[in-house]
Amino acid sequence: MEYRAINLAEKLGKVSELWSPRVIAGLNDYRFKVARVQGEFVWHAHEDTDEAFIVLSGQLVIRFRDGEVRLSEGEMFVVPKGVEHCPVAEDECHLLLVEPAGVVNTGDAGGERSAPVDLWV
Amino acid sequence: MEYRAINLAEKLGKVSELWSPRVIAGLNDYRFKVARVQGEFVWHAHEDTDEAFIVLSGQLVIRFRDGEVRLSEGEMFVVPKGVEHCPVAEDECHLLLVEPAGVVNTGDAGGERSAPVDLWV
Repeated sequence: MEYRAINLAEKLGKVSELWSPRVIAGLNDYRFKVARVQGEFVWHAHEDTDEAFIVLSGQLVIRFRDGEVRLSEGEMFVVPKGVEHCPVAEDECHLLLVEPAGVVNTGDAGGERSAPVDLWV
Repeated sequence: MEYRAINLAEKLGKVSELWSPRVIAGLNDYRFKVARVQGEFVWHAHEDTDEAFIVLSGQLVIRFRDGEVRLSEGEMFVVPKGVEHCPVAEDECHLLLVEPAGVVNTGDAGGERSAPVDLWV
C-alpha cells in the first residue's frame, strides 16, 4: 500500500487566499489546517473549543483583551476556549492550526471574513 | 496578563531521553508532545485513536506491515487508529506528536519502552 507524507509547504503553495484555513489532515474528529495570513483579522472567540496556532514561517501576534503573545517560526500557542482574540501579522505568515472539525475561523463573530468550513487542500 | 509562546526547540532542549514524548501543550483533551527519537522503536498500534507525527528536524520512517512512509522536516502523517506501525530514525529526529491525553507511546505492545504518560516538560 502507498502511504504519502503531507508536506506543509507544498500544501501552503496551493492556498492563495489570506485568512482562509484549509484542511490537510484529520486526526479522529480534529483537523490540521494550513493558513496564509497577513494584516489584522477580526476579534472573535470559540465558545466550545481551544484552538492551536503553530507558526511555520513569519511572525504572528495574537491580541487578547488584556495582553498579547508574539509567535515566531517554531513557536505555538493554544488559545483557550471562550477567550476573545484577534490574530495579526504585519508581514505574511504561514500557520498550522489544530482544532475540532466544524470550527468556523471567525468563531462567534461571523461576518464577511468567515471562510469555508473544513475545505481540504 | 502574560501570555507566553511555546518554543518547540526550547522544549526539545529540555528532553534528554530518546523515545520519551513530553507534553508541551493541551488542546481540549488532546496533547501536543515533543520527542527525540533515533533507532528503531517497537511495533505497536493504538486501538482507540489516530496519532499525528510532525517532523521538526531530521527524518522519520514509519513502517507499516504493508509499506512505509518517509517523513522529512516540514512533513507530517497521521497513523490511523488500529494500524500497526513501527517508527524508525536512522539519525536523531525531532518530532511533534498530537494525540488524545492518556495515550501510551507503545500502545497495545507495552513493555520496557513504554514512557511515562503525559509527562510535561
